[in-house]
Amino acid sequence: MKQQTFAFTRSENLKQKPDASTLQFGKVFTDHMFTMDYTAETGWHDPQIVPYAPLELDPAAMCFHYGQTVFEGLKAYVTKEGKVLLFRPDKNFERLNRSNDRLCIPRLDEEVALEALRQLISVEKDWIPTAEGTSLYIRPFIISTEPFLGVAASISYKFIIILSPVGAYYKEGINPVSIAVENDYVRAVKGGTGDAKTGGNYAASLKAQEVAAASGFSQVLWLDGVEKKYIEEVGSMNVFFKIDGEIVTPQLNGSILQGVTRDSVLQLLKHWGYPVTERRVSIAEVVQAQKEGKLEEAFGTGTAAVISPVGKLFYEGETYEINNGVTGEVAKRVYDTIVGIQKGELEDTFGWTIEVN
Amino acid sequence: MKQQTFAFTRSENLKQKPDASTLQFGKVFTDHMFTMDYTAETGWHDPQIVPYAPLELDPAAMCFHYGQTVFEGLKAYVTKEGKVLLFRPDKNFERLNRSNDRLCIPRLDEEVALEALRQLISVEKDWIPTAEGTSLYIRPFIISTEPFLGVAASISYKFIIILSPVGAYYKEGINPVSIAVENDYVRAVKGGTGDAKTGGNYAASLKAQEVAAASGFSQVLWLDGVEKKYIEEVGSMNVFFKIDGEIVTPQLNGSILQGVTRDSVLQLLKHWGYPVTERRVSIAEVVQAQKEGKLEEAFGTGTAAVISPVGKLFYEGETYEINNGVTGEVAKRVYDTIVGIQKGELEDTFGWTIEVN
Ligand SMILES: Cc1ncc(COP(=O)(O)O)c(C=O)c1O
Ligand SMILES: Cc1ncc(COP(=O)(O)O)c(C=O)c1O
Repeated sequence: MKQQTFAFTRSENLKQKPDASTLQFGKVFTDHMFTMDYTAETGWHDPQIVPYAPLELDPAAMCFHYGQTVFEGLKAYVTKEGKVLLFRPDKNFERLNRSNDRLCIPRLDEEVALEALRQLISVEKDWIPTAEGTSLYIRPFIISTEPFLGVAASISYKFIIILSPVGAYYKEGINPVSIAVENDYVRAVKGGTGDAKTGGNYAASLKAQEVAAASGFSQVLWLDGVEKKYIEEVGSMNVFFKIDGEIVTPQLNGSILQGVTRDSVLQLLKHWGYPVTERRVSIAEVVQAQKEGKLEEAFGTGTAAVISPVGKLFYEGETYEINNGVTGEVAKRVYDTIVGIQKGELEDTFGWTIEVN
Repeated sequence: MKQQTFAFTRSENLKQKPDASTLQFGKVFTDHMFTMDYTAETGWHDPQIVPYAPLELDPAAMCFHYGQTVFEGLKAYVTKEGKVLLFRPDKNFERLNRSNDRLCIPRLDEEVALEALRQLISVEKDWIPTAEGTSLYIRPFIISTEPFLGVAASISYKFIIILSPVGAYYKEGINPVSIAVENDYVRAVKGGTGDAKTGGNYAASLKAQEVAAASGFSQVLWLDGVEKKYIEEVGSMNVFFKIDGEIVTPQLNGSILQGVTRDSVLQLLKHWGYPVTERRVSIAEVVQAQKEGKLEEAFGTGTAAVISPVGKLFYEGETYEINNGVTGEVAKRVYDTIVGIQKGELEDTFGWTIEVN
């Protein structure tokens, strides 16, 4: 760990902290942010913690035109004893660098990024909410900033970390959501950017989400872009199914995002001795299992909601109710365990949490 | 046409205009820009021409995170007589609205947008360069601005038009470029955003472009994302082939951008009586034609370069020289005709140009 202390400009107008009971997701930001710049000549430089303030960018800045942006999302929690914990932040910075590689953005030093996050969090410690279901959401991101119109990689970038005290991501909380299988729109395809966390993937997903919402579904179940047969993700989460005792999740294939929660769930399930398989899962298999009464559970996994059980699945004109529309045993167990570890209430046998001093 | 006159704040620091002989592409911007805002309550409002200046955006502005951006590209020319001409700007605003639909961005009134462009151009008239191969590049774009972290359509946007006096887009000019067929990376897929002009498509294309450039090729020939057999585009241009007397271009299929230049070329070729077909074109067919000596020409079409002949094609370890590496007759004829019409030197029989007063 690098022992660098970053330049720090304290904000002169500290904001009122929001009431934890009314917290939404991603609408309120803390007093400070971390920023660092990149230029081709100097590399990454000028790391600093500064007051949260608007960015000033040339209208020709490439991020407005050519989508060369990447981001991450993770959370900080405060324990009953007042310790501040981060959940697997190293995984997020590893993934940020994989996204960078795909998007032709220069890599970050992962240790510097983690140290930046620690220092920012320790400045903003009092912003971490403590009520049930709340946490401090952390958004590291990189944008291309060169003022240039032409399709090429930018020669300058900004890396920024902002923080937001949050409540539940889905208004349903850990309650089951209803999802619709998407047959027309595609989120990502092999050879594209699906395994990178970049804006374009999310922009591409909005239309299907809008169509699903208009029919009363809260999320979309994405199929692969080539054969439109195999399940990829649900909304912006990875997805698990329990079929006849076996737990399956789509194997990483280049168009699925490699979720940190997915990895944690896989480790937990294996540790507990469940039969778990990463493999191709077709929508036909899932529907068939449901018809035969063998689809025991379905749930999404992601940082924002941690676990989001699927209560209803709409496919080809039929709505199927999974596990009678209630949260399954496995979903509940992984949720309780991960949240317990995140909040320091359960023993962290996997070494997933990092304390911020 | 709406006769609205937009608010205008004149810049107090007019910039030095660049020397036309050293003009590059997309690096220099004029003194003013047009901006208009959108909020859910008011719709599009506050249209104005203001000094070209940095945008101030919250670090959580959605365009930095979720890629909800669209853009256009077109050009203005000044004729020998000093008339200012726009080339088919209505097509660009039509396409901008199609991109908006795909990206869940509220539509613009196309007449208001065109009138905004006319007024901006008439303010910046002196910025239009006149030297051979130069023009004023116009970049209308829309970015999502709501400060919110969560995958959803933004509730606020900014529409902006900036202008840049430009020289040739490719340093080769109208000279033939060498291209490599891309087998791994995919630009767009059916069901994705390939037929919208949105940042994510360009971000996705950078890696393949980087790999091609490292092997000495200046552009990538994109295949379809599903079967990796059918030709889609070349770099960020549409593509035409002349095979055994027939001119073919990939038919629009949802993942190909509907180019304005493509449409103009199709109209011209039909008008001249060439046999022209829009259909699926496989890479196998093109390579086979080349081997049999029947591939007479290949060229890309797009606003930036207008026509870009393909001199060399790299596929599966072989480099094929098309038309002995020189610009073909058809490419030359469409280039001369389109550029001639754009600059008011040839009769505009199709009614493509619009004069700005
Ligand atoms: C598309 C997509 N899939 C899956 C996930 C889940 O990843 P993680 O568990 O790392 O949050 C995310 C991010 O939250 C995502 O954006
Ligand atoms: C991906 C892509 N294809 C094709 C084109 C050509 O379109 P147009 O002729 O309208 O410039 C463009 C834009 O220039 C483009 O970005």
